[in-house]
Order: sequence, then structure tokens, then C-alpha cells
Amino acid sequence: MTLVESVLAGDRLALSRLLSRIENNSPEGRAALKELFPHTGKGHLIGVTGAPGTGKSSLVNQIARYYRQPRSGETPRRVAIVAVDPSSPFTGGAILGDRIRMRDLSGDPGVFIRSMASRGSLGGLAAATAGLVQAFDAAGFEVILIETVGAGQAEVDIARLAHTTLVVEAPGMGDDIQAIKAGILEIADVLVINKADRPGVENTERALRGMLDLAHPTRRVFRQNEHHLSPAEPEMELQEGNGFWQPPIQRTVSTEGTGIAEVVGLIERHKDHLLESGEWQRRERARLLSELQHHLQLLLFSRWRSGLSHDNFQSTLDAVFNHQLAPQEAAERLVYQS
Amino acid sequence: MTLVESVLAGDRLALSRLLSRIENNSPEGRAALKELFPHTGKGHLIGVTGAPGTGKSSLVNQIARYYRQPRSGETPRRVAIVAVDPSSPFTGGAILGDRIRMRDLSGDPGVFIRSMASRGSLGGLAAATAGLVQAFDAAGFEVILIETVGAGQAEVDIARLAHTTLVVEAPGMGDDIQAIKAGILEIADVLVINKADRPGVENTERALRGMLDLAHPTRRVFRQNEHHLSPAEPEMELQEGNGFWQPPIQRTVSTEGTGIAEVVGLIERHKDHLLESGEWQRRERARLLSELQHHLQLLLFSRWRSGLSHDNFQSTLDAVFNHQLAPQEAAERLVYQS
Repeated sequence: MTLVESVLAGDRLALSRLLSRIENNSPEGRAALKELFPHTGKGHLIGVTGAPGTGKSSLVNQIARYYRQPRSGETPRRVAIVAVDPSSPFTGGAILGDRIRMRDLSGDPGVFIRSMASRGSLGGLAAATAGLVQAFDAAGFEVILIETVGAGQAEVDIARLAHTTLVVEAPGMGDDIQAIKAGILEIADVLVINKADRPGVENTERALRGMLDLAHPTRRVFRQNEHHLSPAEPEMELQEGNGFWQPPIQRTVSTEGTGIAEVVGLIERHKDHLLESGEWQRRERARLLSELQHHLQLLLFSRWRSGLSHDNFQSTLDAVFNHQLAPQEAAERLVYQS
Repeated sequence: MTLVESVLAGDRLALSRLLSRIENNSPEGRAALKELFPHTGKGHLIGVTGAPGTGKSSLVNQIARYYRQPRSGETPRRVAIVAVDPSSPFTGGAILGDRIRMRDLSGDPGVFIRSMASRGSLGGLAAATAGLVQAFDAAGFEVILIETVGAGQAEVDIARLAHTTLVVEAPGMGDDIQAIKAGILEIADVLVINKADRPGVENTERALRGMLDLAHPTRRVFRQNEHHLSPAEPEMELQEGNGFWQPPIQRTVSTEGTGIAEVVGLIERHKDHLLESGEWQRRERARLLSELQHHLQLLLFSRWRSGLSHDNFQSTLDAVFNHQLAPQEAAERLVYQS
């Protein structure tokens, strides 16, 4: 059996080995991804992002546990967790998180946890994450949780991989007007206020609702419509089920398991919404297109670079270094001369 | 006079107009950057990054004010501030920050402030910031402060533009082990603990020193060397002035102006170190090379795309969307067939 066949047959050790190859972007990893690709497209990719201190890792654990509990008439889903921390060069946070997780979820063959703490280029990190997610998807994990730290563009780009994005906040972090990042709210499908037993939870929820009104202006149209109860209004199209999703806010205390069932309920409702509205397919296509573009750019650059004379490149580079030729002008000369 | 000539002659209105064209990546903006490029290379680019709530904007203001104060025997330097907030789609934070700044620094013709809150691709944001910085440099601003929010990869990439990078922390934000981001410490040339009149400042400084030992292992070698006082030791090469810079930690209370003179002193000492060690030129070259590569990738992609038949691209894309062909394989076919 090849490594890919073993992974498709459910071999955990083979999967672990394959994930390393993908993460290292080795030729074997790239070849395996091509073979695995036809088996992908079934997993529900759930991004979970939030600032340090919001208890995001513990929330992700609880969501995984909830999906693993046997429920009447349902087979528990297989859950993969990909934890990405682009800013840690030491995998310190990731390793710490893993230890806590291992204690919590270890021994369950339906759960697979993988941490990444690469500090390569952003494009590289997003591409590696996409590869890991595809491997989990092909290996039959129905729920794939992608956990990212913080609220930077790196997290936003990784969250774009997901079908459903949870943004986690916590009370006492929103004193500063800038602390609640409007940009991150825009990508939120579900907002979670974790550590909701802490003082200030009302303020956090109020601030989030205010920001949501700004970030999702269509929501305001929908609200105004509630007062003009005329079904003929074109704004009615914006209702849920007609392609419109109003990001709900859910309070949780993940250390006690409070609110977890509700969060999973909202994730599932969002999945139904995506499937019914055609948004699932739209997000899938956007993701594949951006992956294709990433590979195209890399290939075009390396093909072009290999055909270029060293002397020509070096003399142009020197002109740039000597401030005689602007980088953009240098690029134009190099591309159109070659 | 052309717009570029006006900018070089010190016309603020012309500069403001030019900055907009650069930010919008208009053809006029790109043409102007080519003309301006031979005039660049003199400004000291200072990156200032830190989490929301650290008082980073107020610190940047104070640094700008300090550079503007007349000192005996010295002409005050001209200061530009570029404030970048990649996560804000509303420029809310940026606008607020500008208002406070305007009150503080307005009327001084030696100061120019520009805010950016683009949510384009990360590469686009870094490229636009690089363009603004070049315009300020060519226009004769000797000190260019680039302020970024947070600690994500976006900030790291933008900070890479800078000759000198300040990382700003504040007491009470480092309770969480993850709150002090090791990745961001690695790019720090000067560490500032702002709001140093707050309780917990000793803990913050201790945590930072601990993280610095991890992030700069060479520093540990240097320290060990202090105990073996043998000048013959090869580790002695790592001392300051021989290409080694030990990031200092400075406490400030920017609202009261405390510690600002010391921060500026450290910035200037770092500049001297860069110039003496050859690191100034090395950073400059790395920056220009990465800018060149960015333009090359864009040009190569657009040249290739324009020569491609629509039908061929669309049928390959459909195969990807139908999960028949992996994105990487599709990219290979498209590039090597065309």
C-alpha cells in the first residue's frame, strides 16, 4: 500500500507522516496532495480565531469533544484540529496547547490534532494550512477545526479557507476602542464571547453588537424592515435562508462546558445555510481559485528565473541597489527583455 | 512643474496628491515612483509596532515632537508618519488617531502624517506602504515613522521595510504566556515598555528579558562571555559595533513625555550601529530585492494571463471545481501547456 492508500484506509501513523511531508512542502507531499484531491470536498472547515487570552484553545477542545459525544441516531463525527500560530518561532504556545489537549482528547481515534508554527512567508503558511486541511478532508474527517491566534491579516487569510468562521472575544479585553477589530468581525459567521462568567460581559456584548451593525450594514436594512412589515419590500430578500446570514453572538464558559451545545448548534445552522444558499459552493470555488493562483505565480516565477542569464539579472539588481533604477522599472525591463 | 517636481521642491499639497495616487496604485502613481526613486535612500525608516492598548500612537507622536524640537547646533529633522492598520476596514482607528495627532502636531510644516487602512491583499498593503515611504524619503523627510497595529505577519512584513524597529509593550498585557509574541520580539531593535507608571511594569520587563534570551540566542553567548573575560574568545565578535546589536528595553510614559529622549537616543544609536556594521546597506538591499520580486511576480502573471485562451483556462478551472484536478496540477498544466 502506498502512503496515500494507507491514509485513505484510515491509518493514523501514515496520516501523521503525510502531514509532515505536506508541511515541509516536500515533493512527496505535493504528489500526495494531487492524489488526495479527488477525495476532498466533504469536510466542514471551521475557522476559530481570536486574540490571546480569550480561551480559544479550550473552546476548540470543547467543540471537538461535543462532536465526539454519542447522540441518539447519529454517528459521532471525526474531528481534526489544525492549530496555527504564525507568530511563534518556537512553537511554544502550540506545544503547550497540545499538551493540554492531549490530556483532554487523547485515546480517541476519532480526533486528530496537528500544530503548525511555521514562520515562513504568509503565502507559504496559508498554503501549508490548506494542504493539511485537504489531507484531513480526504482522510475522512468530517469536522476540521482551524485555530488561529490573533487578528492580523495572516489569520484573516487562513480563516478564508473555512466554510464557517468563529471569532472569539472575552470580557475585559474590549476597553480599548481598537481592541475589537472591525476587520475580524467582517469575517465572523458566529461570534463567541468566552469567559462569559467574568465581569463586563454585558459591555463586551454591547460593543460587539455595535460593531456588527457597522460591519454588516445589510443587517441594518433587515432591521429597518422589521418596522415596515411589508412583504413586498425588496429588502426582505436579505432574510436568512435567502442568502443572508446574520452573525449570532453566543456566550460560553468553555472551562465549564457552558454554551458549547449552543455554539455547535449555530455552526450546524450555518452549515445548513451555506448549503441551502449556494454559498458553500461559492466559498469552495473562491478557495480553490486562490490556491490555483498561488501555484501559478510560483511556477511562472521559477520557470522565468531558470531561463534568465545570471549577468543580466545581477547588473539590473546592481542598478536598483545603486538607486539608479526603480524596482518596478527593473521588473519591467527584466520581464520584457527576456 | 510636474507633480514630481513640485514634491521634490517641497510642495505639501503636491505630496498629498501624490500619496493618494501611490496608495491607489494608479498609473500616475507608479510612474511617479520611478521618477522619485533616484532621490530615495536617505531617510531613516523607523517601524513602530505593538498591540492595541499599548499607547503606540501617542508614543509615535512624542517621538515626532522630540525630533522637531530645536536643539543647539542641529537643524530639527523633518518627520513623516505612516500609520497602517491592515485590519480596520473603516479607517476608524486611523481617523481617530489622526484627529488626536492633528491637534498635537498641526501647523508644523516639518511634520507630515498619513494613515492607511486598506484591506487589500497583504502584498498590496506592504507594497503601498513601501511606495508611501519612498515618496516621503524622496521629498526629504529624514525620519519616517511607520506605525503598525498588532503582531501578525502583516505587521512583521511591514516592519521589514524599516531600518529600526520599535516593539511597544505595556504592563498588564503580559499575564497570558501567549500575549508576548516571541515572533515580534525577533524583529525588535528597541523594546519600549510604555505606560510604565502602571503596576506590573517589573513583571513585564522580566518577561521581556526572558523572551529576549530565547529570541536572540546569540545574546546569551555574549552574556556568558562576560563571565569568561578572555578577549581571545571568538564570541567576542558578537559585541556591539562588530555587527551585533543587543535590543535594549526602555520604559516610557508617553502621555507625560517620560523616557522619550532616551528612546530617541536609542534609535540614533541603532542608526549609528547600522551604518558602522554595514547592516544599513544589507537591510536596504534586502528590501529592494523583495520589492523587485513582488513586481516580477505580478508582471509575469499578467503577461502570462493575457496570452492564455479563455476556454483553456475555464475548462481547467472547471476540472478543479469538480475535484477532478488538484490546483497544483492544474497550475502545472496551464503553465507548461501555454
